[in-house]
Formats: sequence, C-alpha cells, structure tokens
Amino acid sequence: MQAITTYQDIITKHFEDLSIKKDPLNLYDPIQYILSLGGKRIRPVLTLMATEIFDCSYKKALSAATAVEVFHNFSLVHDDIMDNAPLRRGHETVHEKWNINTGILSGDAMLILAYQYFEDYEPIIFKELAQLFSKTALEVCEGQQYDVDFETRKNVSVTEYLKMIEYKTAVLVGAALKMGAIVAQTSSVNAHLIYEFGLNLGIAFQLQDDYLDAFGDPLTFGKQIGGDIIENKKTYLYIKALEFASKEEKNQLQQLYSIQSENNTDKIETIKKIFNSTGASTATLEAIKEYTLKSFATLEKINISEEKKVILKTFGENLMNRNV
Amino acid sequence: MQAITTYQDIITKHFEDLSIKKDPLNLYDPIQYILSLGGKRIRPVLTLMATEIFDCSYKKALSAATAVEVFHNFSLVHDDIMDNAPLRRGHETVHEKWNINTGILSGDAMLILAYQYFEDYEPIIFKELAQLFSKTALEVCEGQQYDVDFETRKNVSVTEYLKMIEYKTAVLVGAALKMGAIVAQTSSVNAHLIYEFGLNLGIAFQLQDDYLDAFGDPLTFGKQIGGDIIENKKTYLYIKALEFASKEEKNQLQQLYSIQSENNTDKIETIKKIFNSTGASTATLEAIKEYTLKSFATLEKINISEEKKVILKTFGENLMNRNV
Repeated sequence: MQAITTYQDIITKHFEDLSIKKDPLNLYDPIQYILSLGGKRIRPVLTLMATEIFDCSYKKALSAATAVEVFHNFSLVHDDIMDNAPLRRGHETVHEKWNINTGILSGDAMLILAYQYFEDYEPIIFKELAQLFSKTALEVCEGQQYDVDFETRKNVSVTEYLKMIEYKTAVLVGAALKMGAIVAQTSSVNAHLIYEFGLNLGIAFQLQDDYLDAFGDPLTFGKQIGGDIIENKKTYLYIKALEFASKEEKNQLQQLYSIQSENNTDKIETIKKIFNSTGASTATLEAIKEYTLKSFATLEKINISEEKKVILKTFGENLMNRNV
Repeated sequence: MQAITTYQDIITKHFEDLSIKKDPLNLYDPIQYILSLGGKRIRPVLTLMATEIFDCSYKKALSAATAVEVFHNFSLVHDDIMDNAPLRRGHETVHEKWNINTGILSGDAMLILAYQYFEDYEPIIFKELAQLFSKTALEVCEGQQYDVDFETRKNVSVTEYLKMIEYKTAVLVGAALKMGAIVAQTSSVNAHLIYEFGLNLGIAFQLQDDYLDAFGDPLTFGKQIGGDIIENKKTYLYIKALEFASKEEKNQLQQLYSIQSENNTDKIETIKKIFNSTGASTATLEAIKEYTLKSFATLEKINISEEKKVILKTFGENLMNRNV
C-alpha cells in the first residue's frame, strides 16, 4: 500500500502521459483538453487504492481507473452544456471553448473510450467491470435527470433528494472502489461492502457540500458561498427547512426561492438564518454524520486487516475534512 | 433461414414489445418514443440474418440486434440536435418534442443501454461484441465529426469523403453482420469477410443515396429531391464534378454552393446539368457499381453454402434496388 498522495501522483502522471491526439482533431482535442484540466482525481485514486487493499498491484487497475475518470469527465462535459456553465476548474468549458455540437460529440466519444479502457482485462473481469460500469453510468444519467426535474418541481421529498444525490454522485464513488475489488478478484462480499462504504461516504460528502455551500469558509470551500441559494437550488438544507418551518418561515422561504434576487447578499443572509432557526442546519449535520458512520460501520465488515481498515477510514476522514 | 421480411417482422414485433417505461420518465419516455417511430430496422435484421447464415438460431441474436438498433437511434437523436433537424421519420425529433438537454441525456442513456443488451451473452462473446461495438461506435462519432468539418472546408478529397461515409454509415452495417457471426461463433475469417461484405455494401448504398438525392424518383426516394444541393452538401457527385469541371463550370459550381438560393428549383436544375456535363453522374454510378461488386466478390469467399450466398446477394440487390 502507498499513501493516498502517492496514488494521486501516479494517476496525475498517468493522465499527463495519456495522449489522445488523433484525427479528427475537432473530436479528440476537446477530450485531451478536458482531461488535462486536472482536478483531484479522487475516483481513479479510489480504484487504485481498493485494488491494493485487496492485495493486488495498483498497476493492474490503471486501465479501470482511467475509465472511471474519463467517464466522470464525460459527465462533466455534457452536464456543463445542460447547465449552461461557462467555467470548469477555472477554465472555459468544452462547449464554451468550441461549441455545443463539439461538446455533445466529444462527450459521446469519451463515454465510448471509457468502455474501451476495460478491454485490457480478460473476458470475465471485462464483463464484470463493464456491467458495473453500465449500471452506474445509467444511474448517473438518472440522477442528472432527477436533478433537472427537481428544478421545476415545487416539492421534493427528502427521500427523493437522497436518491438523486446517490445516483448523481455517490454510485460512482462506490463503483470506483468496487472496480478495484473486481480487478483484485476479491470475494463478492468484499466487493459489495467496499461499494457500500463508498456509496454512503459519497452521500455524506454531497450532503456536506450542500452544507458548506451555505456555511463553509469562503477561503477554503473553493466555490462561491451561497451559490445554491442564489440559484434557488433545492438542497437538503432547503428541503429540511421547508419541513420544519413555521407557516411564516415557509412563505418567506418559498417567496425568496421563487425569484432571482437583486441583492444576493441579503437573500443569502436571510435564508441562512431560516436554515438555522428551523433546525435544518442541525438536521443536515446529523445526516452527514449518519452517512459517514454508516460508511465506517460497513468498513468494519470487510474481510481485510485492521491496518487496511485504518487506511480506508483515514481516507474517508480526510475526504470529509476536505484534505484530499 | 427465414425470408428477410420475416426477420423484419420479428424485429418489429420485438421493438413493439420492448418496454422502457420507467422512472425518471423524462429520461426514458423519449427513448421509448424514438424507438417506436419504426424505420426499416435494416441493421438488426442483418444481425439476425448473419446469425442464421452461420447456422445458429436468430433467437440467440435478438439482444445483439437490439443493441445495434438502439445505438443507431442514439446516433440519430444526437445527430438531429447537431443538424437542428425538426423531423425524423415524419415525426418531431426528440429535442424538438422535449428540449435539447433531454435529447443529450436520453441519447447518453441509449448509448449505455446498447452496451447493456450485450450482457445477455457469456463473457467471451460479450467481450467480442462490446469490443466491436466500441470500435464501431467511435468510428461513427469520427464520421459525424468529419461530416461536420467538411461543411466549413472548401475542398474535400474523394478519399476523405469515402472515409467519412465509411465511418458514418458503412461500419455499422458491417458490424451488424459481424455481430451475427460472433453470436454464431463462426470462424474469425468468416466474421471478417461478412464485415467486409457489409462495409462495401454500406458504402455503395450511401453513394447511391447521394446519387438519388439529385437524380432519384420523387415518388419513391422518400426524401426531397435536391435536398443535398439546397444544403450545399459536398457529396460524391459534387466532389467529382469539381474534379472534372472546366474552369467556368468550377466557378459556377462553387458560386452556387456558396449561397442559400432564393430559387431552389433553378439552382437544382443548373447543378444537375453540371453533374451530368462534367461526367460526375457517370463517375458516381461507376463507384456505386464498383463497391457493390466488391461487396459481392467478398461474399464469394465466405465459407457457407451457395444457397446462403444467394440469400445474402439477394439481400444486397434488394437493398440497392431500394426494395427493403
């Protein structure tokens, strides 16, 4: 086993060396571009890590890890078109730098390329990986669709919201880990458990993202504080606030979430006060804790050494402390 | 072996019975919609046919055939967005009936669903099918990109054009047949040969499409005659006309192809005259014949009974006579 940062270095180098320069350039240049923008490469790191957790060299997992990261970037390219986002990782998005058609087509090619990386594995492992990948990729599409649907819906239940973030974000975290388990050919029980560990950690992470979007430190969060509030996004905080609100607070909340405000500073402050007064903030912190603990409890059941459990738990804690 | 129309009936019924009604409806309803619009289902029919040509029941090929047709429809959904097309098979396109974001996301889901249909096969066949499918799907993306690139380029060579139609159209015809060969587990030589048969037939078919777009019978062609000319599309006819044209004809051709004409009837007539006077029409007919004969010559080399060669050849002739 290596330190997390070592895996990060390995995968960063791997993507730097990855050359997708070929004809037609208008198809492949945007792919090279988005893959070179970096990011934390959390998902492929998880694949490498899980492979070594189950006593197999990370080298065997490089292709699967690449597939996961290429897929993740595919979903960013298409989501950025749908969200009309001009920037990604501080640089122009693909559809902004080229055009929407290029974003669509290069994205499609990335989804196919992701499958091709699995071809480095023998048939039985190839099928297991591709099958998990297809299931996960389809869930990510479903999660994105739920997210789009929620924008125009008045009420979204906590259950629906949790399903959305599970599909849109958490399943890929679970799948990245499970792919390592598949590559290492560990037991299906272990593979299932490490998936559940990642899934719950992914949900906890996304709920924390919702929380930090309102209450995070502007210096370390990396995104604009209050971004979700400005966009009237129905996050866990909002849904819980509506649930707990008095009639008066509910009206105020719904009214503020039905407009594009002139004065975002005031809007953010008012909404944050309601998040606190209703108990939505506390409920969100509790949910984050619940899913983190659920994740760590699953970890205990995996048939690996205590030392390796500590490595995975430390990774989880670092992720939740936003240190990776 | 069954008659071609029998395979068509089987696959038509198969798609009628295919239910993709599930949540989120905004993701799956557009998929159900586009798949229910029909079409000739040529590609899945080829998969079923090839399977029986190599002495295996078509029933074993239904999932692979479904994958091919779902992929084909995925490419239509995304291409229609890129081409800004309002109609497909006489009905609203997906992005027109819903919106562009729905077209993108439902298309993505279809590409993934196509891979999932292969999961019905055991690992070795699964890998062979998925590998051929990924290669083909990527080529289709490349073909589409070349097609887009050609729109804004002044000169396109015959070689480049042939590569574009090979990738955009013909490889999927070859792959549909080869999937049947893979499912039937025939020799790799046979699988390769039936791919080549389909590839060349696909090129011949697309060249004929170019020809008929200008010189076809309005009553039977099914598309507006002169459509390519109105859109200034650099087809085989146009490229050959430029190659053979006198300086005067060349100027006239390039001038007419640089404008959106007020009077399309006149433009179409003038262009058709140039296609004829330069010998481009004859050259196109010769190319169609060349690729058709190349396709049929490959057929002779396949290790199957004469009777079965006749079936494939008859299919090819019917396709080129636009009877299927």
